[in-house]
Amino acid sequence: MKKYNFNAGPSMLPREVIENTAKQILDFNGSGLSLMEISHRAKDFQPVVDEAEALVKELLNVPEGYSVIFLGGGASLQFMQIPANFLIKKAGYVNSGTWAKKAMKEAKLFGEVVEVASSADDNYTHLPHNYEIPADLDYLHICTNNTIFGTELREDIDAPVRLIADMSSDILSRPVDVSKYDAIYAGAQKNMSMAGVTVIIVKDDVLGKAPRELPTMLDYRTHVEKGSMFNTPPVVPIYTLMETLRWVKAQGGVKEMDRRAHERAEALYAEIDRNKLFRGTVAKEDRSLMNICFVMNDEFKDLEKSFLDFATERGMVGIKGHRSVGGFRASCYNAMTMEGVNALIQTMKDFEAQH
Amino acid sequence: MKKYNFNAGPSMLPREVIENTAKQILDFNGSGLSLMEISHRAKDFQPVVDEAEALVKELLNVPEGYSVIFLGGGASLQFMQIPANFLIKKAGYVNSGTWAKKAMKEAKLFGEVVEVASSADDNYTHLPHNYEIPADLDYLHICTNNTIFGTELREDIDAPVRLIADMSSDILSRPVDVSKYDAIYAGAQKNMSMAGVTVIIVKDDVLGKAPRELPTMLDYRTHVEKGSMFNTPPVVPIYTLMETLRWVKAQGGVKEMDRRAHERAEALYAEIDRNKLFRGTVAKEDRSLMNICFVMNDEFKDLEKSFLDFATERGMVGIKGHRSVGGFRASCYNAMTMEGVNALIQTMKDFEAQH
Repeated sequence: MKKYNFNAGPSMLPREVIENTAKQILDFNGSGLSLMEISHRAKDFQPVVDEAEALVKELLNVPEGYSVIFLGGGASLQFMQIPANFLIKKAGYVNSGTWAKKAMKEAKLFGEVVEVASSADDNYTHLPHNYEIPADLDYLHICTNNTIFGTELREDIDAPVRLIADMSSDILSRPVDVSKYDAIYAGAQKNMSMAGVTVIIVKDDVLGKAPRELPTMLDYRTHVEKGSMFNTPPVVPIYTLMETLRWVKAQGGVKEMDRRAHERAEALYAEIDRNKLFRGTVAKEDRSLMNICFVMNDEFKDLEKSFLDFATERGMVGIKGHRSVGGFRASCYNAMTMEGVNALIQTMKDFEAQH
Repeated sequence: MKKYNFNAGPSMLPREVIENTAKQILDFNGSGLSLMEISHRAKDFQPVVDEAEALVKELLNVPEGYSVIFLGGGASLQFMQIPANFLIKKAGYVNSGTWAKKAMKEAKLFGEVVEVASSADDNYTHLPHNYEIPADLDYLHICTNNTIFGTELREDIDAPVRLIADMSSDILSRPVDVSKYDAIYAGAQKNMSMAGVTVIIVKDDVLGKAPRELPTMLDYRTHVEKGSMFNTPPVVPIYTLMETLRWVKAQGGVKEMDRRAHERAEALYAEIDRNKLFRGTVAKEDRSLMNICFVMNDEFKDLEKSFLDFATERGMVGIKGHRSVGGFRASCYNAMTMEGVNALIQTMKDFEAQH
């Protein structure tokens, strides 16, 4: 049976990316060696890093004066690496969900942290809105898409201070005005690659200003200067990243990814709103196009397990909601097709017809 | 033409590990999904992490009271993470090569660092010997195999203080008395997996003693408590690690790896010592079984490029020496066969016959 992968991350990747990665693992560029066993200093690997970097810049229209680097450790490591590099006295955080809160926690080790806005009291069922950004912050940190709660800030806000964004779960799904940010970071395992590499886009002239001596590996300048090759980088995850970037470009770039994201999400939210069994969990204006969260309406609560089993039998994978929200979550990253979304919608319709 | 992969890292892996990884990337356990796109929380992935952990413990005979964790970021990140977790007042480092020196540099940010011994003045052509270990150190840090210079400490020393070892390039190549160490760490990309995961073996009751608040991701306890699943781990590199560990076990474990390492290295060093064109670069008693460094004898110096071309034509890959040593380096990790070593020896003999 055909499977439709709605996993929140690691998550669905384009089939050709998967097949090309497997092929290169068996024989990299016809060298007779596996992609896993070539030196990162090999002549054949440098072009992979270079192309991945160039494609991030091209697809997101990254302006001059910014660097793109690839690091291991995941976005969770960035939660501390961002303040280590950028926090001088005081940073502001928008607390829009679990990951935003985790990022804020790590910053407190490096200076004063202001919670500029929060929707925690409403269990993050909407984004914080209409907040004021103090002008004396070193930076404002936002998380553009809240994977767990299914809210998304799908625009580039104006901030009177440096703006730093965790875009782990919606990067490459829309055009971004990178010039509004001083740093953007994203774990690759949603829209970009297998788990194991994190992409960081950073404005060069803001580095080196924090008043602390940084361990070499935690200083972004180390990796900017060495082109992500200071130490052995995660070779295979970077290769897969490059393949995915090629795929995004071939499909029409981030503008087309944005169109598809809207098409998928609109169809699925329409069904959630129409179907008597279900309701969405977040404020309509803040609904994420990436992580679509919904629960059973109260009168059908006892059908939850039954729907999950029904959907699983139909090939739906990973739609169980996060324990903080319950119910269901259909993550629709770049690689998700309308066929997959329609299969889920049909599953919801068929289940409704039975009850 | 058959290639023989003498790369220093990332480096040769067993062919069945490569093929099984490629297969799982196409279809993980018959699930219809790629290994790259499954959730790390999936029921099918937990057994992979569990088996990898159990096999490290089994193969290295890790005693009770130790944890095995898998992290991203490479051994270079451990250079700062070790002192962050273990340095209270004063640490000692044996400066036996480039990587040992880099580790020492990072420790200085966290407290007093004593260079207990060094062979830097001799360009690391031998290991430091007959040094005294001050009894007031929080720990002594050693690097058991110096990949660049080709020296190796192939025994577990007695230290009057905690002993911490970087075993990145010789782990799993011999039985180790883990009880003598408080922590062992190793980047996986030599003897264990593709680049992107680091294995850390740590004694549980020594954690949490350092007098500093650690960022969550840098505190080993975070990962011990969460079984390497605090955040999304490098799923595919961990899978490949598990496959390699299975392979090591099936081949006869680390005792057999040790026997093969001796067999390979003895044959190759014997040829280096016999062949009029070449000479080894390090003190015989400190020769590494993993990274076998040799140069042209002075009177044949101008043949260096010519031998490199000759060997490349014969299928030898990655034998160019590191720029700090020059000449040649044949890295012979667990997956290297006697067939490969014999092919290199024959190449050296044939080249000698021409000159």
